[in-house]
Amino acid sequence: MLKYTLSVFFALLCFWGKAEDGYRLWLRYDKVQDAALLQRYQSALTALSFYTSSATLDIAKKELIKGISGLTGNRLRPREGVTNNCIIAGTPASSVFVKKFFQKNKLNTGNEGYVISTGNVGGKKVLFIAATKDIGVLYGVFAFLRLLQTNQPLENLFMVSAPKIQNRILDHWDNLNRTVERGYAGASIWNWHTLPDYIDQRYIDYARANASVGINGTVLTNVNANARVLTKTYLIKVKALADVFRPYGLKVYLTAKFSAPVEIGGLKTADPLDPGVRNWWKEKCDEIYSMIPDFGGFLVKANSEGQPGPQSYGRTHADGANMFADALAPHGGIVMWRAFVYDLRVQKEQERFEEGNKGGHGNPIAAEDRFKQAYNEFAPLDGKFKKNVLLQVKNGPIDFQPREPFSPLFGAMPETQLMMEFQLTQEYLGQGTHLVFEAPLFKEVLDADTYARGMGSVVAKVIDGSLYHHPLTAIAGVANIGNDINWTGHPFGQANWYAFGRLAWDHELSSARIANEWVRQTFSNNRDFVTTTTSMMLASREILVDYMTPLGLNHIMGTGHHYGPAPWVDNAGRADWNPVYYHRADSEGLGFNRTANGSNALAQYRPEVQKQWDNSRTCDEKYLLWFHHVPWNFKMHSGRSLWEALCYKYNIGCDSVKWMQREWNAVKPFIDEERFKQVQQLLVIQEKEAVWWRDACLLYFQTFSKMPVPAQYEKPQHTLEYYKSLKFSYAPGIGGNL
Amino acid sequence: MLKYTLSVFFALLCFWGKAEDGYRLWLRYDKVQDAALLQRYQSALTALSFYTSSATLDIAKKELIKGISGLTGNRLRPREGVTNNCIIAGTPASSVFVKKFFQKNKLNTGNEGYVISTGNVGGKKVLFIAATKDIGVLYGVFAFLRLLQTNQPLENLFMVSAPKIQNRILDHWDNLNRTVERGYAGASIWNWHTLPDYIDQRYIDYARANASVGINGTVLTNVNANARVLTKTYLIKVKALADVFRPYGLKVYLTAKFSAPVEIGGLKTADPLDPGVRNWWKEKCDEIYSMIPDFGGFLVKANSEGQPGPQSYGRTHADGANMFADALAPHGGIVMWRAFVYDLRVQKEQERFEEGNKGGHGNPIAAEDRFKQAYNEFAPLDGKFKKNVLLQVKNGPIDFQPREPFSPLFGAMPETQLMMEFQLTQEYLGQGTHLVFEAPLFKEVLDADTYARGMGSVVAKVIDGSLYHHPLTAIAGVANIGNDINWTGHPFGQANWYAFGRLAWDHELSSARIANEWVRQTFSNNRDFVTTTTSMMLASREILVDYMTPLGLNHIMGTGHHYGPAPWVDNAGRADWNPVYYHRADSEGLGFNRTANGSNALAQYRPEVQKQWDNSRTCDEKYLLWFHHVPWNFKMHSGRSLWEALCYKYNIGCDSVKWMQREWNAVKPFIDEERFKQVQQLLVIQEKEAVWWRDACLLYFQTFSKMPVPAQYEKPQHTLEYYKSLKFSYAPGIGGNL
Repeated sequence: MLKYTLSVFFALLCFWGKAEDGYRLWLRYDKVQDAALLQRYQSALTALSFYTSSATLDIAKKELIKGISGLTGNRLRPREGVTNNCIIAGTPASSVFVKKFFQKNKLNTGNEGYVISTGNVGGKKVLFIAATKDIGVLYGVFAFLRLLQTNQPLENLFMVSAPKIQNRILDHWDNLNRTVERGYAGASIWNWHTLPDYIDQRYIDYARANASVGINGTVLTNVNANARVLTKTYLIKVKALADVFRPYGLKVYLTAKFSAPVEIGGLKTADPLDPGVRNWWKEKCDEIYSMIPDFGGFLVKANSEGQPGPQSYGRTHADGANMFADALAPHGGIVMWRAFVYDLRVQKEQERFEEGNKGGHGNPIAAEDRFKQAYNEFAPLDGKFKKNVLLQVKNGPIDFQPREPFSPLFGAMPETQLMMEFQLTQEYLGQGTHLVFEAPLFKEVLDADTYARGMGSVVAKVIDGSLYHHPLTAIAGVANIGNDINWTGHPFGQANWYAFGRLAWDHELSSARIANEWVRQTFSNNRDFVTTTTSMMLASREILVDYMTPLGLNHIMGTGHHYGPAPWVDNAGRADWNPVYYHRADSEGLGFNRTANGSNALAQYRPEVQKQWDNSRTCDEKYLLWFHHVPWNFKMHSGRSLWEALCYKYNIGCDSVKWMQREWNAVKPFIDEERFKQVQQLLVIQEKEAVWWRDACLLYFQTFSKMPVPAQYEKPQHTLEYYKSLKFSYAPGIGGNL
Repeated sequence: MLKYTLSVFFALLCFWGKAEDGYRLWLRYDKVQDAALLQRYQSALTALSFYTSSATLDIAKKELIKGISGLTGNRLRPREGVTNNCIIAGTPASSVFVKKFFQKNKLNTGNEGYVISTGNVGGKKVLFIAATKDIGVLYGVFAFLRLLQTNQPLENLFMVSAPKIQNRILDHWDNLNRTVERGYAGASIWNWHTLPDYIDQRYIDYARANASVGINGTVLTNVNANARVLTKTYLIKVKALADVFRPYGLKVYLTAKFSAPVEIGGLKTADPLDPGVRNWWKEKCDEIYSMIPDFGGFLVKANSEGQPGPQSYGRTHADGANMFADALAPHGGIVMWRAFVYDLRVQKEQERFEEGNKGGHGNPIAAEDRFKQAYNEFAPLDGKFKKNVLLQVKNGPIDFQPREPFSPLFGAMPETQLMMEFQLTQEYLGQGTHLVFEAPLFKEVLDADTYARGMGSVVAKVIDGSLYHHPLTAIAGVANIGNDINWTGHPFGQANWYAFGRLAWDHELSSARIANEWVRQTFSNNRDFVTTTTSMMLASREILVDYMTPLGLNHIMGTGHHYGPAPWVDNAGRADWNPVYYHRADSEGLGFNRTANGSNALAQYRPEVQKQWDNSRTCDEKYLLWFHHVPWNFKMHSGRSLWEALCYKYNIGCDSVKWMQREWNAVKPFIDEERFKQVQQLLVIQEKEAVWWRDACLLYFQTFSKMPVPAQYEKPQHTLEYYKSLKFSYAPGIGGNL
């Protein structure tokens, strides 16, 4: 009785305490609700054979016991023998049963893969969670628990899984003062001040969450780098994190500031061909590896947005990257060299633009648009990078817009190991307050065909190394994590972290599958709830495109903080920081002519791709204004004029947010009050901001089109002057703002 | 059975989830562990009569039901009639039973007080939680639950309680960009960007926590003020918070930047006697009160540390404060005018100091030391402030040091309503990583006798209005709250928030009582645990004084961030920002001569107080170096020389931290792993930093004393040069650092 009342009390405590504050992410092991299925699970999982001989296996065992206990109520205690309905977990080295099973089936799951299989040992029905390496067992345990969390059957299982990409990395744009560039979820989770002595529980839970989706690397610091993290004082702190992360299979990387030899090394130059500089980096790497033997390597942003780089010394990006590569190679480290570069040539272009722009928002230049910069810089360097260098390319040619065509670099550098950089943090996608599930965006890029080696040369095959048989592969996502209790601010931000990990492991997973998994694990397996919520998620990115940047518009957000609409801005410090640079609205029409008679950026793609986009009549309308300056009365496939289509898209976007609100309100009965309310409130903000986007953009573009907004649409709430007057000094994610 | 297993599952979930992440603060309603006591509670609390007619009473009822359910397992459902063991809660207006009870006992608990009493209604044994006003009922409910949480008997209760101070206020030094000046617990909990549409659960839980200890006001913004919070855009956000806080009895205040009429009002001047300026503030107040009818008023820092003020226009502090007072008075608002001022005269002194300091760390000036500034500025203004003005005085004359004598202002302004400013955030007390329970510091000041109206004129009586029969009273604590999951970073930081609230309500409570209450509510009622932990807490402040600033040393922390020891700093922007200004070490001795032949700051106290401190032979050694420049071979009461006493104190401080570590390690069995580990790790940091303080300070002062550290003490780990070389660019709590 005491036990019973105690339990009741704890149950109450959970509901009244903070059980659903979102901290648990998708790793909720609440009891299976379906009574019949619960009974099947309870019967099928009654014993455990799990010998552990490493920290990783210890963690895997605890996770498995904890998960099964929570999900089924069965408290498994590891035992020696094998009984019916026994789970056998481990590696060939840790378990004789696994060894025999692997031998019999000629299994080898590689460095990180796993197998989950029903089987038979001495006539007993068993279930294997096994792998060649320890970390594979941990991944297998999480995959197995996911089956339970998502209410999958356990009968006749034989799942073998291994990651398609080797290095699956989160990039944190976190500063040493704990602000986060483009962060919308509070402060950095790295408390540098209390490291190395204080190990926040979050560090452990962070590693665990990453392991659960197969993320195996983390760049701790901002690409806009601070050399100080490479000093001894900070390396001691980095080591403390690396030690925490190691058993979870999570490697630590740092951003390397190119000028570090000068800033903290006391050298006179950072020239990558200078022997003193090369030696400084070699010794720095030796120092790092003496402390962190499995240090991952460096991520470098060079000669971009004020960051120093090899070009400051008349050297090439390859010279710079290879210098780091040489220093890291003896230790097995890698260099991720960012291709997000628009420094030198654009500067000249800016002058030309300003010259050409005298007298209005013209289309002053046809060549050298920012779209082309990265390609121009890097394509000529193909084949010049060392073996442990990856070129880290953003998904699109500009900068993480709601929709971009894939970066032409993916089809242009066969001799270079290219890795993908996605952005999980929603810098241009509604930041911390809009519900946007990014898997469809990621998939759209991964599935895009570069035609680099004929049809089917999709970006995913470039990234996973299969197209050119490159040995080193990687993918990065700019993290959306902060110290908010629920990690990502918006509860649905968690889905983007999850989706990135899942796709990095297996880019063939569908967005729908990922959404479905995440919803079930994070909220509920209730059929109505899952159906409704996944529908919202799958539609959400296109909805955002509609109310923010339809038909190929892009980069018309508020300057600097990128919050809210500001298509009118034309006074930013350089031409290509101005929205007017990107949309090129004028009295004739809208859009950036990137065809042969425009900037000819299209020429950076293979002919097959060019053909898709080079004719405004046949170009997919999603990309229309990316490549064409189109008259306001241009006839769209729908029969609408461009102007009418713009009005239609902005309005359908707003209507769709209202639809999301209705859908969410309908699922209230199925989940906890706390997260329900959070999302409900955020959808109110999203709706307000969608309407703001629509009204501000249509009023502004109307000053060029001179056409009326069709009568069926809502009238704007304010004047264009009102929208132009809005200022957001403390918008989060920029400078010292949180 | 299903119910049972579900409960077991939830119980596990609580332990494995995040039940003890510290978010719940002291409001943990876990089941009473003492089986006999539990049974008594269960029998004594079986029914509830609680009619609610306001949001406040609704909250009180829910809290009471939730608390009793958690603590006893009894799920009370409010009923109409009265049975045996029934709780009757409410006001005379909401309950006929309360009405009769109040009439019979001639009770009136005032605006905020409550009564908890056993009683009899129609022959039934009942328990009243009642008050004259609704908010009193809520305070009574929390007080009652505290009885259960701390395992007190419920028999023959008759507790009447009312706050001794009217306005019990938290001051948040939170900036609009979410950094927190002197904050060591993450970012500001106010997410201005998502207000007013997004109401974070934290806002509600914050109000609830404050109500639970009787805090009834909150200044949302930094005293280093930003005028923008007074613009419409932000007032809408402030209103949203005020609406959340209102039913919890928590009023909202803002800091008013003196130059706001110029900065956001477009006026040419902020002269407090200018009619346009006065009208601007009047209209601003009208605007605020139209949105927030119970707005509390303004906190103003003027003419201090770069903040503008009335002296910028040749006016007095009284002119400035009274301008705000006039604008607020029609709405019932108050002005809290800070006395932390050291602007004008010190500037002149600095020049003299620099002059006098040529050739070494002398004692260049005998008059006008910073100690005397606030008194010099404000004592002459006594009686000049309007009725709704409070002068907000820091506890000591300098700035929240580990130990200060009480501010002489408390004994010097009989015609002025003085309020206390304590600092909960540990700017000079080990910041976010040292365990320091501040109640003994608060009590030391509150109990200090000003002798202003003869013996017994303690500071507490000045503050609570009883000494001079002032109608308006207030006390403020600078908050130590951030968005860390556990609110205060250090788990024991919560105790300072708690202690401030409890002492603000009743300054006669002892530190031991408060520590005991807090430990029982926050961790456990286990006798060994409570004894050990309260002992640590009660000793902790003196321990910090010993390893940081013994014998009256002060303000020798790192310049700017105030992190770590830096007694050697002599190059800060102004004389009184330099540690050398405060300790005045030279070849002869140590300490600041504030006697009649020194700066004569002592003259600011009443003769009885002067007599306590004016003779170095009889002065309490805790204050010795505050008032005397003492030779290195000065003989202390212990027989030690000053130098030996310094060595002894620094070492005993370090030894005591090690004692705290041992004590804490011994209580491991009694509490949760998560908080145990947090504190254990933080004590490691505290020990390291205590040793750092000792070694750095003794090595530095040794350069003056030229005496050896007695052989029995540990040798320093590094050289003085090493300690001097340490730099902390990203120490939290300053600039954009978190």
